[in-house]
Amino acid sequence: MPESHRLNDPLPADSVGIITPQVAHFDTPLALACGKVLPDFDLVYETYGSLNAERSNAVLICHALSGHHHAAGYHNDEERKPGWWDAHIGPGKSIDTNHFFVVSLNNLGGCHGSTGPLSHNSDTGRLWGPDFPLVTVSDWVNSQARLADRLGIERWAAAVGGSLGGMQVLQWSMAFPERIANAVVIAATPRLSAQNIAFNEVARQAIRSDPDFHAGWYSEHQTLPKRGLKLARMVGHITYLSEDAMGSKFGRDLRTNDLNFGFDVEFQVESYLRYQGDTFSTTFDANTYLLMTKALDYFDPAARYAGNLPEALAPAQCPFLVVSFTSDWRFPPSRSRELVDALIQAGKPVSYANIDSPYGHDAFLLPDDRYHAVFSAFMQRAAKEAGIMPANDEVTQ
Amino acid sequence: MPESHRLNDPLPADSVGIITPQVAHFDTPLALACGKVLPDFDLVYETYGSLNAERSNAVLICHALSGHHHAAGYHNDEERKPGWWDAHIGPGKSIDTNHFFVVSLNNLGGCHGSTGPLSHNSDTGRLWGPDFPLVTVSDWVNSQARLADRLGIERWAAAVGGSLGGMQVLQWSMAFPERIANAVVIAATPRLSAQNIAFNEVARQAIRSDPDFHAGWYSEHQTLPKRGLKLARMVGHITYLSEDAMGSKFGRDLRTNDLNFGFDVEFQVESYLRYQGDTFSTTFDANTYLLMTKALDYFDPAARYAGNLPEALAPAQCPFLVVSFTSDWRFPPSRSRELVDALIQAGKPVSYANIDSPYGHDAFLLPDDRYHAVFSAFMQRAAKEAGIMPANDEVTQ
Repeated sequence: MPESHRLNDPLPADSVGIITPQVAHFDTPLALACGKVLPDFDLVYETYGSLNAERSNAVLICHALSGHHHAAGYHNDEERKPGWWDAHIGPGKSIDTNHFFVVSLNNLGGCHGSTGPLSHNSDTGRLWGPDFPLVTVSDWVNSQARLADRLGIERWAAAVGGSLGGMQVLQWSMAFPERIANAVVIAATPRLSAQNIAFNEVARQAIRSDPDFHAGWYSEHQTLPKRGLKLARMVGHITYLSEDAMGSKFGRDLRTNDLNFGFDVEFQVESYLRYQGDTFSTTFDANTYLLMTKALDYFDPAARYAGNLPEALAPAQCPFLVVSFTSDWRFPPSRSRELVDALIQAGKPVSYANIDSPYGHDAFLLPDDRYHAVFSAFMQRAAKEAGIMPANDEVTQ
Repeated sequence: MPESHRLNDPLPADSVGIITPQVAHFDTPLALACGKVLPDFDLVYETYGSLNAERSNAVLICHALSGHHHAAGYHNDEERKPGWWDAHIGPGKSIDTNHFFVVSLNNLGGCHGSTGPLSHNSDTGRLWGPDFPLVTVSDWVNSQARLADRLGIERWAAAVGGSLGGMQVLQWSMAFPERIANAVVIAATPRLSAQNIAFNEVARQAIRSDPDFHAGWYSEHQTLPKRGLKLARMVGHITYLSEDAMGSKFGRDLRTNDLNFGFDVEFQVESYLRYQGDTFSTTFDANTYLLMTKALDYFDPAARYAGNLPEALAPAQCPFLVVSFTSDWRFPPSRSRELVDALIQAGKPVSYANIDSPYGHDAFLLPDDRYHAVFSAFMQRAAKEAGIMPANDEVTQ
């Protein structure tokens, strides 16, 4: 995790600094994959770095399951932790804001400011709640294209994302091949396995069977399905960490000196999971969590080509960087290689790195020398090719 | 899974046939690891085959997390499915009832007839419920020794168990080395990893946070924590199957023709998990499930030797057979090898087989040629050494 900075300390030199989120309102209806139409919507986003005159240096960040627009920097002096991908976005970092203009948004259906279940539904006068349509990766990419239009960005120098974010990048490459110059797909998969879906289904059942869920109308009942969200997050965390990372972080260490022969917290790993679950259960919206897991389950671009992924990838025109992490068992290296093989078969230029890391799926969020070297080299090439960085310039690593 | 036989069909020739469970009552108090004393208790058990005159051919079966005494055969003509380990117990099977007298019990704290949370607590006049003490693997083995005494079995020809059952076998070898001639430890581990504990903790939180749990007094509230048990079982099932088994069993197959953009069952794997969870939630006792998971978490014979497993195993005197399955990710082969290495270091005779199987942890319940060959060869050697089978006799495989 990014280091927290101490209160009143100056911000780290390689931080993008204090960031103010912005909101873009769109009132042209958006047709969704489910057949419904969203009459209008807001997207909340942040930007880091400066857009050049040619508007050729913009990089799109796509977020994962529980992510949001706040990917780098701080919202104010009191914020102790920077954005979720601060390890890789900033001056001199993998996505170097000395060169790039970085755009990071909260996706449709999110719970951090973009239109979603917590937003007002003008048709009913209620919150959207469970009525909010199940948006898909393709819907997200369509809405992100609207944001690009609004910002005057005809073509992204790169679209970048990890996990569910990587799926959005893939979708960009297929749906808008002329609007994306480079694609970075990290710790992702071209489609979920049965086991991935199974874990999502446990999370959904946990939330939906919580009596406080009220069929998704918990806000109107002045309550929150905290038990369900907590369980969903606990299961999630198990899949984000590798077995080894969990082992070396917690082992079988007890919080107290002795077994208590009861059900209070005993092992450190129990304490960690309960804490993570409790925190999440009061800060994340349950309807958003549900629809994000469905977007994950549904993503399967090869499906309409009878499972032929190279055929699905045929429209893509950009070079790809695919990155996986050795200990990631949520989306293991084999899933990335599936994508790499399909890209090669489809005749697309692809670089692939399998990074040796003990941190499991979470590794994509963390700093790591080799990960940074590969990631920043690809981004520097992108910058040079786009003419936004002199061809002989070397960035300190 | 064992094949079901059709109603009115004769029982399969290699079945132990119709079995009637028996109950042994013990009124000598049993001191438990937690410090409490169980004043008296019942153990329900079944036997298959015949005890020889020397009482030297008895084999103890130890059950896993949700297991019970009904390991083989049928309770009546109408029962469609045989006991849980029928694939390996019967005439000509791995544990050959032509030679062995097999004893299979429901452990203390269980919910299938042995004293547990569903039993009457004479101290309070209520059911034991959540007051039932947290029994450990060592308590189980102590109570199993009482059963052996009752049956006049001084020494088991073998103690055999898979998963949590394998832990009981290990405990027998250390606690009563003179009372066990052979030990078969299948798909087990000498202690849970942090990830194993984490999954158990999710299951416990699911049950304990269910409003119908009522701090364990659900029976008195005429209800059952079905939501929690269902979730616990769903999580369990994910860990029992390998990712590949789930993939080849369900893939991304839909139950309906199209995505429904809602939260009804869509993928086959969702349907399977919900069905398994629903069935379990009405047939298994929640307090029993909780204490069984704690027994798993607590088992760690090396703990009192500062983590030195060979030292913990020093008292053992019998030969061991350790079996693991390549696709088991709940207790993977590496955990079995940990045990094998420690046994070798402790100078114990050990045979080890890592069986190539796609079925994950569940493989220990299933028929498999190589598994059967290894298992029955070890058991035949045990039979010959005990003089209960002529040294030159060959058993059909």
